[in-house]
Amino acid sequence: MQARLIALDWGSTRLRAFLLGADGAVLETRQSNDGASTLSGADVFARALADLVGDWRADHPKLRLLACGMVGSQHGWREAAYVRCPADAAALASQALAIDDALSIVPGLVDDAAQPDVMRGEETQIVGALALNPELAENACLVLPGTHSKWARVSAGRVTGFATHMTGELFALLRQHSVLSRLMPSDGSSPASPEAFLKGVGAAQEEGGLAHQLFAVRTLGLFKQLAPEQLPDYLSGLLIGHEIASELQRAPQRLALIGDPALCGRYAQALHHLGHAAPLQLDNTAPAGLWQLAQTLQLT
Amino acid sequence: MQARLIALDWGSTRLRAFLLGADGAVLETRQSNDGASTLSGADVFARALADLVGDWRADHPKLRLLACGMVGSQHGWREAAYVRCPADAAALASQALAIDDALSIVPGLVDDAAQPDVMRGEETQIVGALALNPELAENACLVLPGTHSKWARVSAGRVTGFATHMTGELFALLRQHSVLSRLMPSDGSSPASPEAFLKGVGAAQEEGGLAHQLFAVRTLGLFKQLAPEQLPDYLSGLLIGHEIASELQRAPQRLALIGDPALCGRYAQALHHLGHAAPLQLDNTAPAGLWQLAQTLQLT
Repeated sequence: MQARLIALDWGSTRLRAFLLGADGAVLETRQSNDGASTLSGADVFARALADLVGDWRADHPKLRLLACGMVGSQHGWREAAYVRCPADAAALASQALAIDDALSIVPGLVDDAAQPDVMRGEETQIVGALALNPELAENACLVLPGTHSKWARVSAGRVTGFATHMTGELFALLRQHSVLSRLMPSDGSSPASPEAFLKGVGAAQEEGGLAHQLFAVRTLGLFKQLAPEQLPDYLSGLLIGHEIASELQRAPQRLALIGDPALCGRYAQALHHLGHAAPLQLDNTAPAGLWQLAQTLQLT
Repeated sequence: MQARLIALDWGSTRLRAFLLGADGAVLETRQSNDGASTLSGADVFARALADLVGDWRADHPKLRLLACGMVGSQHGWREAAYVRCPADAAALASQALAIDDALSIVPGLVDDAAQPDVMRGEETQIVGALALNPELAENACLVLPGTHSKWARVSAGRVTGFATHMTGELFALLRQHSVLSRLMPSDGSSPASPEAFLKGVGAAQEEGGLAHQLFAVRTLGLFKQLAPEQLPDYLSGLLIGHEIASELQRAPQRLALIGDPALCGRYAQALHHLGHAAPLQLDNTAPAGLWQLAQTLQLT
């Protein structure tokens, strides 16, 4: 099949490249550790790109490239200014930043209805999810779990607003650097404990506040009510349980989970435990989003 | 004045010693960095004690010593088992752990009405606060801000229950290790911004959850709505604002703040900002508490 686009999902810690054919079919996938936060200076970004997909470009000299993610941040290759919510795929495409004749970068989104909130990369995953599942476009909440989880509200094909939760980052900080880590196994190889995870999800629904409930990770270990290897799952459940509780205070909507299947599975378990219907689950939809935006930009 | 007791406030990071005279008057004060978390083994604890107060003991060979704090934890000199709430000074004194003929350790408290919660050292500060301010004993909430803040409810002279908030530890983790630290000045010397602090306190009263609101520390910096040197105060306000909001959901009570005056001042500012009456503020009441417990134990 003929190659039509080089799609780049260029986040903080990783660069993922997809060679796309007709209808956005993924012909080939590659990745490197040249994340945007590890690079500095346009020539360094250009070299990282050449290292990963130089041969693709040599084989297909007329192919265009479209990138999304932290590559377009202040500390990325060049800054692609945020587009304000509400915004749809056309608004994002119209503000794409051309680095040169071949490469463009998709801008991020800002929701400045209250305190400003931002995303870079997730807007493209959302465009992909809506392209793959048009029934979500009318009215849904798309959840992208991760270091900085995003909950994006979609209505009539536009992202109307969103909220970030620093859930994954808090987990890593508390798991590695806090007093809570002292009772836990030091390696990450302990078997998962769904029971401890759901106990944490449940505890997060109680009163008292997150900073209080976190201390129970220590005391439940201290009094041997949870085994050391269960504590990371309890902590994960507390944090994810708080994130879900905060967001579901809004009017409940059709939910879809997007991203790493194992992590999305945790959110699905937590939602089930709290009595919610099973949400749609989608793997990384960035390639589909980049294809969709490239179509709008007539790059293919 | 004649020396009557050597009182030891022996926490995780510091050992503070007080030579007390009649009525618990502080005759002399010393401290070292031999905190309980830096020591291991009974002989090492004994040497740290001799290093700091060996001459006091030589000068006053019949003087008894009473210690409180993490020195009595699992990883301290020896473990003094927790006393269950509700508990008063007599209950704490009756469970003091004798290390030898001269030295005893005050036990900590556990509140196991729901998830277990624990304190070590603060129970003694509470005893001191009630001895110095008997009017608090009838019905009050004593707040001890810190790495792990404690909110203790007191009724009829007993601690009926309490809650820990990991506010200080979260601040340190987020200030030093998180994505939020990147936009902040790297040293701790920036001038305080009461305005940014109170803005954070106010934001904590909104919906959305702590893990969401924390991300605004980044975006307010990114969009230059706060200066880099204001961001630590905004973060502090968010965390303290959440702690206060969680606790004041309970029936409001007479509050007293105990501990470091600068930190207690922050809590007082936040409470004032939220429309609450000015609480009583007390500096470290551990010496008064150790004196009171020593009286009960007839050590003086």
